[in-house]
Amino acid sequence: MINIAILGLGTVGGGVAEVVEKNQNEIKKSLGDNLHVKYILDIRDIPGVVKDINVIVNDPDVKVICETMGGKEPAYTYTHLALEHGISVCTSNKELVDAHGVELSEIARAHNCSYLFEASVGGGIPILRSLRESCGHEKISYIAGILNGTCNYILTNMKAGKDFNTALKEAQEKGFAERNPAADVEGHDTARKIAILASLVSGKKFSYEQVNCEGITKITQDDFVEAERNKMSIKLLGVYDAENNSVNVAPYLIPENHILYGVNDVFNGIFVKGNQIDNLMFYGRGAGKLPTASAVVSDVIECAKNIGRNVNNNFVDLPLAEVNKIPENNSGFKFRVLN
Amino acid sequence: MINIAILGLGTVGGGVAEVVEKNQNEIKKSLGDNLHVKYILDIRDIPGVVKDINVIVNDPDVKVICETMGGKEPAYTYTHLALEHGISVCTSNKELVDAHGVELSEIARAHNCSYLFEASVGGGIPILRSLRESCGHEKISYIAGILNGTCNYILTNMKAGKDFNTALKEAQEKGFAERNPAADVEGHDTARKIAILASLVSGKKFSYEQVNCEGITKITQDDFVEAERNKMSIKLLGVYDAENNSVNVAPYLIPENHILYGVNDVFNGIFVKGNQIDNLMFYGRGAGKLPTASAVVSDVIECAKNIGRNVNNNFVDLPLAEVNKIPENNSGFKFRVLN
Repeated sequence: MINIAILGLGTVGGGVAEVVEKNQNEIKKSLGDNLHVKYILDIRDIPGVVKDINVIVNDPDVKVICETMGGKEPAYTYTHLALEHGISVCTSNKELVDAHGVELSEIARAHNCSYLFEASVGGGIPILRSLRESCGHEKISYIAGILNGTCNYILTNMKAGKDFNTALKEAQEKGFAERNPAADVEGHDTARKIAILASLVSGKKFSYEQVNCEGITKITQDDFVEAERNKMSIKLLGVYDAENNSVNVAPYLIPENHILYGVNDVFNGIFVKGNQIDNLMFYGRGAGKLPTASAVVSDVIECAKNIGRNVNNNFVDLPLAEVNKIPENNSGFKFRVLN
Repeated sequence: MINIAILGLGTVGGGVAEVVEKNQNEIKKSLGDNLHVKYILDIRDIPGVVKDINVIVNDPDVKVICETMGGKEPAYTYTHLALEHGISVCTSNKELVDAHGVELSEIARAHNCSYLFEASVGGGIPILRSLRESCGHEKISYIAGILNGTCNYILTNMKAGKDFNTALKEAQEKGFAERNPAADVEGHDTARKIAILASLVSGKKFSYEQVNCEGITKITQDDFVEAERNKMSIKLLGVYDAENNSVNVAPYLIPENHILYGVNDVFNGIFVKGNQIDNLMFYGRGAGKLPTASAVVSDVIECAKNIGRNVNNNFVDLPLAEVNKIPENNSGFKFRVLN
């Protein structure tokens, strides 16, 4: 039996506990052992939770910790502490991965444990593991990702005729969008995710601050009419272009014969181009309690299979990228066109 | 330096040699070591090739063998021999995996080496590794795959107005279809692939012979007109349905809002449904020299990272599946409709 701890009993943390319980037979088959949630840490007064991280990191039974708190602090301090104790940490926390992923990955390596973050990009989509394990030997020249389900939901509804505010309000009512939707609709969430993907495949650290970022708030219904006339749709993409050494987030026109054209509603899709494998696309739920938790659990299983050994996302020893500006939009349209 | 051998210098075998040479820097980064092709075995008189498998399996330098011969013999005998010598084998040979994959996987486990076959399904698409490593803890209830690029190319062209024979001839001229296209257009190739996928996720061995198989030769242009009128397309799918415990291959009507609708030309797409992760789809080139070779190389790297240890596709100790007949087509259309 492998004992784990969950830090933060929010949506994703609660999902991890649920997946571990509901899928215990499948976990046993995959891992060859059971997972057991020994501790849950939360700042709230919930029966059975602990509030002191030291109880967890000083328990030699705990082999893997799921950091599902989000935000920089105390997630950073707790992760740092766990890794220094040789306990692997799996997270969905894109903000922390963007800000301190390289440092935390190096601490993990130095202490023969792992810092994994599959759930930080694309929710349930197994994109990081695929890039690392199946495409680690490819030269990745291009990534274009629909990486924010809220924006994609809003744009799908605008395509169907609703205006931005109505579509946003509906997304909020359905729980897809936050009350303060800025991080989603201004593209900042997408920027963090494309920065993580670019870092993983390029051998250089791209950070959120380096991403040229434009959101979806200026898109009008007229833009969708114009797009439709040209057999295209409008999607918010995070784009990494190796040749130009650039990372940007912006609304793009997607031709109807492109595989990303059919990625609608809250779903995410990540298009990848490698020099030998050519075009790939990965599709799935980019958010949501159980899909995201499932991705965290896949990392927990990988850590549990490799106790005492470091597995990493090529996030160690990364120099900071020098990022170029994206070329001018010379598509003849208001938005760039995805090739 | 990790020494490898390639058995069969055909399209895929030649591709493996090319990927190993062209992407040596990326391989070094991913594996932490170089790959070196020490031997190529081929029955033809090509300068530098060896013809005796014993030269290869008795060389303790050889750590991984790529079996890219295709067909059952001598691929089966050579693979058997290599695994008994503790040498891992990576293959694109779906026929052999379907017929002897369980036995060969068990031999690999007994000799602390691996038998991996990512390239046998979906060409370059990292589907097996994703199912095994990222979704091994999921209950997979459903897989629907466009698994044969030749059929998809023909159907895409029929949708554009060509008749079956013209589209087939064009596929043959472009090198996508064999002169004897039966294995593709009758659905047998798709049947082998869906049988492998079903076996991997179900814990039971589904074999090619158990698949209820219908090809694309009876599809007419009228069928496409009728499909279009209903905002659907026609695709040849391999379908695994866990609830009904069935595996079948047949033309399906795909509604335009389904993510498989946009998988066209020679591309493959594999739709997967898990109980926690929900819907996923993996898209890429299902055939072709370099994409397929890239998938073989991803397996070689995994074997090389795990010398002396067994990695397996859950293909060990599998009892033969008892397969149910698929339910009647009660869609009201000539073909079943994908849900």
